[in-house]
Amino acid sequence: MALSRAECVALDAADPLSRFRDEFVLPDGTIYLVGNSLGAPPRAAAAAVARAVEQEWGGRLVGAWNASGWFDLPLTTGDRIAPLIGAGPGQVAVGDSTSIAIVKTVSAALGLRPGRRVIVSNPADFPTDRYVVEGLAGALGGYEIRDVSGPDALPDALSGEVACVLLSEVDYRTGARHDTEAITALVQESGALMIWDLCHSVGAYQVDVSAADFAVGCTYKYLNGGPGAPAFVYVNPRHQDEARHLLTGWHGHAAPFAFEPGFRPADGIRRFTVSTPPVMSFAPLNASLDIWEHVDLAAVRAKSVALTSLFIELVEEFCAPYGLWLVSPRDPERRGSQVSFGHPDGYPVMRALIDRGVHGDFRAPDVLRFGFAPLYIRFADVHDAAVLLAEVLKKEHWRDDRYGRRLAVT
Amino acid sequence: MALSRAECVALDAADPLSRFRDEFVLPDGTIYLVGNSLGAPPRAAAAAVARAVEQEWGGRLVGAWNASGWFDLPLTTGDRIAPLIGAGPGQVAVGDSTSIAIVKTVSAALGLRPGRRVIVSNPADFPTDRYVVEGLAGALGGYEIRDVSGPDALPDALSGEVACVLLSEVDYRTGARHDTEAITALVQESGALMIWDLCHSVGAYQVDVSAADFAVGCTYKYLNGGPGAPAFVYVNPRHQDEARHLLTGWHGHAAPFAFEPGFRPADGIRRFTVSTPPVMSFAPLNASLDIWEHVDLAAVRAKSVALTSLFIELVEEFCAPYGLWLVSPRDPERRGSQVSFGHPDGYPVMRALIDRGVHGDFRAPDVLRFGFAPLYIRFADVHDAAVLLAEVLKKEHWRDDRYGRRLAVT
Repeated sequence: MALSRAECVALDAADPLSRFRDEFVLPDGTIYLVGNSLGAPPRAAAAAVARAVEQEWGGRLVGAWNASGWFDLPLTTGDRIAPLIGAGPGQVAVGDSTSIAIVKTVSAALGLRPGRRVIVSNPADFPTDRYVVEGLAGALGGYEIRDVSGPDALPDALSGEVACVLLSEVDYRTGARHDTEAITALVQESGALMIWDLCHSVGAYQVDVSAADFAVGCTYKYLNGGPGAPAFVYVNPRHQDEARHLLTGWHGHAAPFAFEPGFRPADGIRRFTVSTPPVMSFAPLNASLDIWEHVDLAAVRAKSVALTSLFIELVEEFCAPYGLWLVSPRDPERRGSQVSFGHPDGYPVMRALIDRGVHGDFRAPDVLRFGFAPLYIRFADVHDAAVLLAEVLKKEHWRDDRYGRRLAVT
Repeated sequence: MALSRAECVALDAADPLSRFRDEFVLPDGTIYLVGNSLGAPPRAAAAAVARAVEQEWGGRLVGAWNASGWFDLPLTTGDRIAPLIGAGPGQVAVGDSTSIAIVKTVSAALGLRPGRRVIVSNPADFPTDRYVVEGLAGALGGYEIRDVSGPDALPDALSGEVACVLLSEVDYRTGARHDTEAITALVQESGALMIWDLCHSVGAYQVDVSAADFAVGCTYKYLNGGPGAPAFVYVNPRHQDEARHLLTGWHGHAAPFAFEPGFRPADGIRRFTVSTPPVMSFAPLNASLDIWEHVDLAAVRAKSVALTSLFIELVEEFCAPYGLWLVSPRDPERRGSQVSFGHPDGYPVMRALIDRGVHGDFRAPDVLRFGFAPLYIRFADVHDAAVLLAEVLKKEHWRDDRYGRRLAVT
């Protein structure tokens, strides 16, 4: 027997992270299980952007580039993200998007492995990773993209021709979490460089990139940086002197205000910045990092495991007759902070669930995804979500909408 | 004899654009002649970002991607910029930075001119243009970058090997404005493609890109979009079906939410978007475009010519004995909305001028730059700026600071 709602409420009362919920804004009546897609806004985000507009831009105008630290935002913000991924100061630069970050890191990796002409990626990872590699490889010419269906297929895919491997630490559809330590070692033993996509792991638990060669990630999921908040790039210090990437904009120049005729890369991580940072998009991210400074990542992981395990248990108990199947790994060690279930009527089921205030999302053809952000999701929310999911599934009557999609009759 | 201050005040009273000044926030006592670097904040910018944070992100959470139009921001915002540059709907996409926009357009141009292996650029243009082309050409291999010192040198540089020409419409140092119509025709006659950098022209007057092949530009100078506001890309409709660029992120995919394994470009301008747009940075830009919708660009240009001509006249009259020389073209037809003067003590002169509330900027080795944004700069401001510049230059005593730079003793 899974926990009762009262027992869940008791767990919330004892939760060491419960005080963080008030740091976020969530509409009444919403159980927000989409923090793995777009995190909820920090309560301080509105004041942070107001300050950036009124005091910094309005008060100091162009002088704010120095006086308000705008110019260095990519590096100062990077140093704040670093501890969340097991990196040190001067190893993380923030800016652009994850797609652009992949161009930077893959192009840098190819430059560090001249003569090796294969890029390994997993077509099941979030598609932009693959699309970007495809565009880059096509433009550069002479590169092969080698598919792996997952980490298990890596040993066969690795050869002396592989320059780099780009993999997502957590699968965006299934929530499966890979063994980064073992995979990184395997890739590096073959002489290739390992690039991790941390979009679905940063903020979900303590990431450790210290062995990796490069990493990228976004800041708008578990990190709550806001829609389209800038992405980050991690570059292992052992590569920083030699790594050169394709996107050589003036902010990555050794002397950006000397206006020299030729590009000369800045020392260290700064060469991985490209151009004028989007200051307004950094404001909510830094408001969120003000919270993250006080967060114990071990407690985040413990609660994440408890929330996701509880959700699986409750859903399997309440929804047993309704044809759901677990897509995510059952072993919490192999799971991120996300649970996916399959259902043939996944799309209308999710629609009906959202109508009841439980926000998850749907990934074709049949996956219901639920993300659990431990800073603001409660055990009672998990219980309520499972109850409401069962209520939706129990409905026997469906009708087709005008697009031919099945909808629950409520 | 140049105009008196009283005559300038009278011009302001008769100025059809004077009502726009109240739409912008400027600190008291500041004469802000750096709108060519970072435009002043629209008064509505603070409310716009507050709305984006509180009502859209806070109120709709991930649902705002559709409900608040976030997903389409790059195209809806592009359609609002289009009229300012002589483009039509579906021809402009907004996102990323100017440097990234150059990667998109140059890589697309190279793809449209296979076999041609020369990229022409002007090393005197803003350095990032050149840096980015250098990074791209270096990565692709087999390309030559051919320097032109200016448009006059183009006829000699153009040959059957030239794939594309990237030039800035207005020179960021001198404010010189090029004849885009003649240059575009010349370039296209040679079979090459013309890419205009409009950073220093958009919002300064009615730009006309309709003959160009591609254009890029930033939105944080005369357009007042905010620090690091997203850049734009213009693609002539005749190229939209064939143009492919290097940065193939998921937002440029024909079916971004189908999560297909391979990249398939979206129809039209959407393929020039890359990834999740930085929503917070779009908010002030759209607040500014709410103003620009009501602006008569012919009036902007007329006032810009009047302001810059007056400034030249007043400075030359008041500062005649002090060793200044005019760097910008004297003919207003050949000038953007910027005036540059040279002075051997340019750096300390600008420092002293800023201390007096007149904000311009300095570009090594000896250029004082002054930008005139006709929506918020008044004729009286121009008069006051010239008087204060003369006051600074009149000081005879200079001392060297600890960096060996000469400072005015005030």
